[in-house]
Formats: sequence, structure tokens, C-alpha cells
Amino acid sequence: MTRSSAPRPKTKRGVERRAKLLAAAEQVIGEKGFAAASIADITRAADTALGTFYIYFPSKEALFRELVEDMGRATRTQATEQIAGAPNRLEAERAGLEAYLRVVRDRPLQYRIVEEARFVDPEAYRTYYTEFGKAYADQLEQAALKGEISQGDAEVRAWALMGIAKALGERYVLWDDNVEIDRVVAEAHKLICNGLAP
Amino acid sequence: MTRSSAPRPKTKRGVERRAKLLAAAEQVIGEKGFAAASIADITRAADTALGTFYIYFPSKEALFRELVEDMGRATRTQATEQIAGAPNRLEAERAGLEAYLRVVRDRPLQYRIVEEARFVDPEAYRTYYTEFGKAYADQLEQAALKGEISQGDAEVRAWALMGIAKALGERYVLWDDNVEIDRVVAEAHKLICNGLAP
Repeated sequence: MTRSSAPRPKTKRGVERRAKLLAAAEQVIGEKGFAAASIADITRAADTALGTFYIYFPSKEALFRELVEDMGRATRTQATEQIAGAPNRLEAERAGLEAYLRVVRDRPLQYRIVEEARFVDPEAYRTYYTEFGKAYADQLEQAALKGEISQGDAEVRAWALMGIAKALGERYVLWDDNVEIDRVVAEAHKLICNGLAP
Repeated sequence: MTRSSAPRPKTKRGVERRAKLLAAAEQVIGEKGFAAASIADITRAADTALGTFYIYFPSKEALFRELVEDMGRATRTQATEQIAGAPNRLEAERAGLEAYLRVVRDRPLQYRIVEEARFVDPEAYRTYYTEFGKAYADQLEQAALKGEISQGDAEVRAWALMGIAKALGERYVLWDDNVEIDRVVAEAHKLICNGLAP
């Protein structure tokens, strides 16, 4: 898989155009899928000339990888912010799960792109979840040290909890028009609380 | 998506050939991905003539759908068998998770095909997990009635537990060469037991 090798733009206009291409790509690839989405589709959606694409990205593959990497960073930052106010880890679990389900509802195309990365760019896919899993496990370890949750393998737990969030996001948010996020979170949180409680 | 419309073969030889094509398709599509796997690749792997394919399947799409449907049925049957000897639901959860992780280890291509169905045949993908989820929720409901686990929304729990199994299968089985299935199961089972205990 080609790495993004074009130098980052230095002018304000360049930075904006590049960001516009990434946003357009999220929309177009998310809707059509990677193979069907052409560079022409992306530049059209970004309201720019076809040749402009190559000023910023060497290939569609390189842009796709950057999209997934950006999403990974944004998701980790969001997760950290959304649980920042929680008084303890069990409350943070509730806040994190609720926030995740709301992101899936508000940005279903992002979810689809990350899942498609499994096939389009397996390394980017793996990095996305591995980085998230590491940050999650760190938090669980801290919480266990503080006695907010029981002792246990933090990494296995982090992946189990990510799995719960992903499965519920798929079933109750992506597939359901009338998602009752509050109810799903409350039910799952009972299981998680009992599962982790000290 | 085209439905499988060719009539099922009646002769022993026909039944065998059809099964051989399905097995070859699992191998070829699992390794190459759906788009890159040609019908010629599949018939070659099945050691049969190209034209034979169309006696049994109207299209590659139809064969793919049947592959996913077959896998769904097999997975549900296996799951039922593997937990049959468990004395109660919490032990069944352990046996089911362990069996699932062993299937991912022994048949990684099957896992990949089901995940690719999300993009190739979303309806088949959804049916696969929906049917599994229904059977799982039924069992949890029975267990709650018997007092083997606490009361709770059986469907949310079934999806949460499926999510745990999928995430651990990906992280510890597909991505790791030296998977310690016993350790992962033991760690996850503590969380699940506490989460569901009456």
C-alpha cells in the first residue's frame, strides 16, 4: 500500500483544499465503497479540478490511508473528551459507549470506511483498532490501580468492551431507524458494570 | 443481488460436484477476496471445467450468498453442539467462546468471507448475524427464566456477547500467531460471568 508521500501544503488555501478533498472522499468512498469511488468523483464532490488531487495525494490508496488514520486520531481524541467528566471508570464506560453509538448514528459513512479498510488497507485497519485498544487498556489499568474496577487483563478487557460497542452500534444504530440509544446503553452498561465491578 | 436459482442436483455426483465448488470458492474467495476471485479460479480449484459452474450456480454472486448462508447454518449448529454438554448458561458461555475462537483459528478464511459479505452482499451479512443473534437471545432468555443468569434484555446481551467474541477472535486469533486461547477465554469469561451472574 502506497504511503502518503506528497508534502503537506504550507499555504492556508492549500491546507483548506486538502481538507476539502479528504471530506469529499469520506462522503464519496463511504457511499460508493472504495473500488467504485473514482478520483474524479472525489474531486467533483470537492468542487475542484481532477489534476488538483495529485498535488495533495499520490494515489487514491494514499488518501484512503490518511482518511483512516485521521479517523483513528479523531476517535481517540473524542473518546478521551467524552469521558473526561466521568467521576469513575464505570461511569466512563457508560459515557464512552453512549458517545460511540451517537457517533455511529451521526457519521455512519465513517464506520463503513473503517470497516472497508479491513480489505482495502489491512495495515491501516489494524493500526486503527490497535491504537484505540492500547489507549483503552491504559485507562482500564489505571482504574484497576485506583480500585475503581476489579483486577484483570486490561488488554483482553479493552478488546471485549470495544467488541460490545461495535456490535451494538451495528445492530441498533446502523440497522435500526428508530434507535433507542439510551435503552441499549442502559442494558449493556448493567452487564459491563457487573462484569468490571471491584 | 441475484438469488441462487439453479435447481439442486439430484444425483450423487451432482451433489458432490456442487459441494466441491462451494469448498473451492471458500478457499479462493477467502484468499483473494470476492472481486479478485474469478469463476475460472474457482472451477480450477475445484478441478472441474469452467462451464460446469453454471450448471450449479447462476452467478458468482449467487454462489457467494449460498456460501454465507451455509456458513451461518453451520456456525449455529456447531455452537449448539459445542455448548450442549454445559451444565448451565455461564459454563455454556465459556464453552461457546472457546469454540468460536477455535473455529476462527482453524477456518480464518470463513471469518474473512463473512466480513466481506458486509460489502458484497449486505443482506446475507445481516441475516447471518441476525439469525445467530436470535438463537443466542432465545438461549439467554431460557437461562434467565431458570435463574442461571440475571434478568435483562436478552437481545442486547446476545449482541454484546457476540461482539466480545468477534473482537477477541480478531485481535487474539487472526492477528496473533501464538494465540493463547485458554488464557483469553479465562479472562473474558470472568468479565462475562460477573456481567451475567444472577
